[in-house]
Amino acid sequence: MANPFAFSLIATDGAARAGEIATAHGIVRTPAFMPVGTQAAIKGVHHDDVREAGADIILGNTYHLMLRPGAERVAALGGLHAFMHWPLPILTDSGGYQVMSLSPLRKVTEAGVTFRSHIDGAMVELTPERAIEVQILLGSDIAMQLDECVALPAKRREVERAMNLSLRWAECCKRRFEAAPANRALFGIVQGGDDQALRERSARSLADIGFDGYAIGGLAVGETQEVMLKIVGATAPMLPAEQPRYLIGVGTPADILEAVGRGIDMFDCVLPTRNGRHGLAFTRFGPINIKNAHHADDPRPLDAESRCPAARDFSRAYLHHLFKAGEALGGTLLSVINLFYYQDLLAGAREAIASSRFADYAAQTKEQWTAKRDIHAS
Amino acid sequence: MANPFAFSLIATDGAARAGEIATAHGIVRTPAFMPVGTQAAIKGVHHDDVREAGADIILGNTYHLMLRPGAERVAALGGLHAFMHWPLPILTDSGGYQVMSLSPLRKVTEAGVTFRSHIDGAMVELTPERAIEVQILLGSDIAMQLDECVALPAKRREVERAMNLSLRWAECCKRRFEAAPANRALFGIVQGGDDQALRERSARSLADIGFDGYAIGGLAVGETQEVMLKIVGATAPMLPAEQPRYLIGVGTPADILEAVGRGIDMFDCVLPTRNGRHGLAFTRFGPINIKNAHHADDPRPLDAESRCPAARDFSRAYLHHLFKAGEALGGTLLSVINLFYYQDLLAGAREAIASSRFADYAAQTKEQWTAKRDIHAS
Repeated sequence: MANPFAFSLIATDGAARAGEIATAHGIVRTPAFMPVGTQAAIKGVHHDDVREAGADIILGNTYHLMLRPGAERVAALGGLHAFMHWPLPILTDSGGYQVMSLSPLRKVTEAGVTFRSHIDGAMVELTPERAIEVQILLGSDIAMQLDECVALPAKRREVERAMNLSLRWAECCKRRFEAAPANRALFGIVQGGDDQALRERSARSLADIGFDGYAIGGLAVGETQEVMLKIVGATAPMLPAEQPRYLIGVGTPADILEAVGRGIDMFDCVLPTRNGRHGLAFTRFGPINIKNAHHADDPRPLDAESRCPAARDFSRAYLHHLFKAGEALGGTLLSVINLFYYQDLLAGAREAIASSRFADYAAQTKEQWTAKRDIHAS
Repeated sequence: MANPFAFSLIATDGAARAGEIATAHGIVRTPAFMPVGTQAAIKGVHHDDVREAGADIILGNTYHLMLRPGAERVAALGGLHAFMHWPLPILTDSGGYQVMSLSPLRKVTEAGVTFRSHIDGAMVELTPERAIEVQILLGSDIAMQLDECVALPAKRREVERAMNLSLRWAECCKRRFEAAPANRALFGIVQGGDDQALRERSARSLADIGFDGYAIGGLAVGETQEVMLKIVGATAPMLPAEQPRYLIGVGTPADILEAVGRGIDMFDCVLPTRNGRHGLAFTRFGPINIKNAHHADDPRPLDAESRCPAARDFSRAYLHHLFKAGEALGGTLLSVINLFYYQDLLAGAREAIASSRFADYAAQTKEQWTAKRDIHAS
């Protein structure tokens, strides 16, 4: 069977791109936002709401899923799509980032990383080959190479070492991925911290190896937005134009608009659901902290013109009450509202790019976040 | 405007009754199960799922709502229906039961009960008149009289004192309720513990005062199912046949079937949602504890023939995983599955009563809970 994976550029507008990624489980419209389904669930949100919000693709975390319920178990249950009853495309990360951020004990060697599970304390080895094997077992449409992600700020020597190791792992992953079913795609990950020379070397080397798409990793790990956007702006043009570009772990609505303007096609971030659970709503009028006391008597919905029923139907007073009363429904509703907001932000970007007015769209969107703040915001 | 509240008996089958309660917010098909929306939310479940499950009416807790967000605030926001965006009928309890069970300090006098709020420690007075006033402010379709509920076992003298006090409060409530908008109904509550003579005196006295419906309170408070059903079976026939009968706080699917067979029309209970959050699913094949390890590899849904999408679409392995991984979605899905189960149980009872086969329906339902246990259950 021919690999259904393909990226089609539909329109460009400056550096911004609109396109479609075809996968075995359907089309992903780009630029795309991928809600994060860490443990085979988008936290607190029913799959139906994720789809209704407009997500074409979700992300699953290899680190979490390999530890619990286990990759072999998921495979025996028909793969991640069947296991979690999500019929649309899935991208899985390689597990590298979570090993670095979650494991209480880890050792990185040429062969891979050995770490202590944060769940049961067992020692687990994650090699580039095993990272791919796990993702093949999970059955994701898009797999990611194993990489080593260094928190910033970091010494150049350390960033360079991790970047070079990630490149060698990229080759191991590519080799192991040859055994994958033909309907899967593998992305390489550009590392190099905030050093543009290292980023360039990483990007060129990955392109030489050849992947189905390219991610920019190692950002949103402590650096300023200015540094992040500088690296993105300089790195994206070095990546093959005919393949999708994914900025890992980014970010706020503002980050995403800026990165789309620099040629990024795919995003993932926990912000819409994590902030939602903590009472922060993303709206056209900017972020609103629904826990603030002045919402207690406010009969207005968060956004009467939203496409999201929860943003239209429930008053700010009611949402405020749910958080004050500790009702989990509050976090669920705000998570859904935020997922709709992110999807609509990207849908607006796609339309704007297709009609060559992305710069105006980004400027107007940002202006609205602040212009109406006096009457709407927190 | 004429009071739209009316109860129509559609069919009887032995002591079992099927009917309809008309309210200003719609029809309640009886026997009815009312999901509990303690703090203006059914815990962890979206309103849409509560409606989809088939609930015609939900219950709100006066004690909780008067403390937070406050009855006057809810009234200013348009009443409980508008506040929580629930357009169908709502019954509110009187707050008496929660004062007894939740308040760390309370004092019962002839005038009412004074208690310390479990939220902020403030001293609050709840008189029969205030209980009605709060419910008028909330705007519930059915209000309940303030009563004093005694935990069983208890001395007869204590049960009798509380029963007599509840009768005097019933008169105060009735009087105060005369100021309520005409589209509301008020129910009296039979007390008397496990003493049938006291129950009879309470029931007759309440009927003399005259209410729109009658509840049996003070059960499911520590007594055996046998005692509970004996009291229900003896008390229900003493209540006016032309008005609805509500058994407060009951119960398991078995309790409900037994009570329907004894002439009860309305139920409320936290079991479907509370047990759902704790991993217990009610199914046609009996209760299933999804946290048990042997579900981890089970690809079967909880019930492939359920009307509930979550019971059909998600495997036991996936639901098990959600609980093991601490994903709140697990509790939400099982709560929804249980609400569908309870509604379908009552819908089946209504149909069976209408076709004079309720005894068979109850027997077959109970048989199925155990007959298929070897292949399906926990």
